[in-house]
Amino acid sequence: MKFGDKGIEMELLKKRICKDGKVIGEDILKVDSFLNHQMDVQLFQEIGKEFKKRFEAEEISKILTVEASGIGVACITAQYFNNVPVVFAKKYIARNLDAEVYESKVFSYTKGTEYFIRVAKEYLKPEDNVLIIDDFLAQGSAVTGLLDIVRQAGARVAGVGIVIEKSFQEGRETILKNNVRLESLVRIRSLAGGKIDFVD
Amino acid sequence: MKFGDKGIEMELLKKRICKDGKVIGEDILKVDSFLNHQMDVQLFQEIGKEFKKRFEAEEISKILTVEASGIGVACITAQYFNNVPVVFAKKYIARNLDAEVYESKVFSYTKGTEYFIRVAKEYLKPEDNVLIIDDFLAQGSAVTGLLDIVRQAGARVAGVGIVIEKSFQEGRETILKNNVRLESLVRIRSLAGGKIDFVD
Repeated sequence: MKFGDKGIEMELLKKRICKDGKVIGEDILKVDSFLNHQMDVQLFQEIGKEFKKRFEAEEISKILTVEASGIGVACITAQYFNNVPVVFAKKYIARNLDAEVYESKVFSYTKGTEYFIRVAKEYLKPEDNVLIIDDFLAQGSAVTGLLDIVRQAGARVAGVGIVIEKSFQEGRETILKNNVRLESLVRIRSLAGGKIDFVD
Repeated sequence: MKFGDKGIEMELLKKRICKDGKVIGEDILKVDSFLNHQMDVQLFQEIGKEFKKRFEAEEISKILTVEASGIGVACITAQYFNNVPVVFAKKYIARNLDAEVYESKVFSYTKGTEYFIRVAKEYLKPEDNVLIIDDFLAQGSAVTGLLDIVRQAGARVAGVGIVIEKSFQEGRETILKNNVRLESLVRIRSLAGGKIDFVD
């Protein structure tokens, strides 16, 4: 598989999105019946196995995600990576000056506000090979914050694993600019007219 | 096992708390190296198996928790309950008037503020037999909010499963007043003088 290649997409996940996903307006895909409010753990197991396949060659030492909806997928996925520890970045409204944490500023396009994500320094070390996992990729701001935190720690990013990528937004481009490998299990080209159009 | 009985405690978890837990002041136990910031998925599997043992007789149809730190334990635990769906209540600062959600007010003693937790109505039905899972039990306010939400849905509470109970605070008493079964894997009698004293 080439660097940045989209790889084989998950048919199971595509089918589930078509069956249970709800398109709101032109750019929102609501999948809270199985991904980010109610969570289908059996589906998460298939997602975890697929991430393992895609990052098979990597010796992952830690999985990093951000609260809240990334946590479930990250924990189930860790089981297919020899139960490596999962660290979730915590979200805060205000900046913090605690010397014991790595912090990055994230802009939320959905809410039009900024927030800060933090990870305690003791849980990311220079020797770590980190797999970043998140449920959605849209503008890429949360993942960019996570990449920044891994960089601050002096650790290596093995790659970024995303469940659903909205390919019509800037996230993919933003992440690839960081020269890291991105694996999105499903890529959506457009939600225009309420129709879910996948990238082939 | 009797109703409300404390059951057999998890030695593995006790040992881990003694090894990696940090007592701050007289009432805070910091376990963010394995439970609620960095997460030890292998330990979560043992926790999940133990919850399964304790609620063996119940036909659980759904696991309910609250973001963020309950999600990891809840998802891993669901695997031992035939992969039932996990629903996590979301936290909000402001009240909402959406007719599509169940909402309950929670007072945070730690922060001295109140917040609201919400679950979409479609994910809790009267026929559900719900296992509530959370990482910590202190004053019991988050769990009380979850119990309130299950009650609003007209569903049954099979029980409450807690990883670490601070038995010197009011949570246990508050929950048992609701006449529901409470299973805490580890109960802490006191943290006075920086010493972790377990309930036998």
